[in-house]
Amino acid sequence: MPEKTLDDLFLDTLKDIYYAEKQIIKALPKMARAVQSEEGKAAFLKHRDETDMQIQRLQQVFELIGKAARGKTCEAIQGIIAEGEEIMEEFKGSVALDAGLISSAQTVEHYEIARYGTLKSWAAQVGYADAVALLDANLQEELATDMKLTELGEKSANPKGAKKVA
Amino acid sequence: MPEKTLDDLFLDTLKDIYYAEKQIIKALPKMARAVQSEEGKAAFLKHRDETDMQIQRLQQVFELIGKAARGKTCEAIQGIIAEGEEIMEEFKGSVALDAGLISSAQTVEHYEIARYGTLKSWAAQVGYADAVALLDANLQEELATDMKLTELGEKSANPKGAKKVA
Repeated sequence: MPEKTLDDLFLDTLKDIYYAEKQIIKALPKMARAVQSEEGKAAFLKHRDETDMQIQRLQQVFELIGKAARGKTCEAIQGIIAEGEEIMEEFKGSVALDAGLISSAQTVEHYEIARYGTLKSWAAQVGYADAVALLDANLQEELATDMKLTELGEKSANPKGAKKVA
Repeated sequence: MPEKTLDDLFLDTLKDIYYAEKQIIKALPKMARAVQSEEGKAAFLKHRDETDMQIQRLQQVFELIGKAARGKTCEAIQGIIAEGEEIMEEFKGSVALDAGLISSAQTVEHYEIARYGTLKSWAAQVGYADAVALLDANLQEELATDMKLTELGEKSANPKGAKKVA
């Protein structure tokens, strides 16, 4: 068996995030239904549409490197999503539900930010210049979503904008 | 059963990251042994020491809010660490091992960044001003570690500093 290379690691990680995005696109409509604020609902649905486009960009990356678009079970995203579902269940109907959901979504975003950051860097190293642009487009969307969620999280934890540290 | 509040969510998430840090402190020496570069080894060991201090800060937060320091199984970190172990196994002895290990460590850092960002924001909302400072200290260390890992990752994927996109 030939020694593994950075190309192999790139392909493995690409399959990992492809699987992850496919799990995320299934989780987002559930989160949109569960969240109480209209702004939260709109943010989750917008990100669902972005995720659809991100999956298409990943398919283009697979094509660029001449490989079949195929996912590989990603235990990290399974654990992250399972935790989000637990919070959804435990905080159902409470004032803290939205804060919990938004916080869960941020753990998802950060997983993706880490993965796309690495993949983009490796794509440049192994010479997949066209893939760099596609991966960067996904990365920028995840960063923007995380910022939007931080903003929504602060509002949802403090709905009246009044209760502050005494 | 009284309705759950942001305080409950804060405590739940504090237990989650406390459990996570205790898993991370066990994983870091294994990663330090596995990584090939001296700089990678030093970075993982330094972060092990930081994690030790972070666990102590979390214990102080539990004390501040009058709760026993107790973890709660965090499936997210279990999945993230399991993936790191898989990469360690699959890329053992290969030129891509360090890049894979560093990338795994970055998924850990990003999970922590998401959690500490949220906890810090909630601590301010519910009026735990002293906890804000402790959580921010952990957050800043995770952000600095992630930046250091990005730098190391770029070196390890490109050890001779020469191979660039043609």
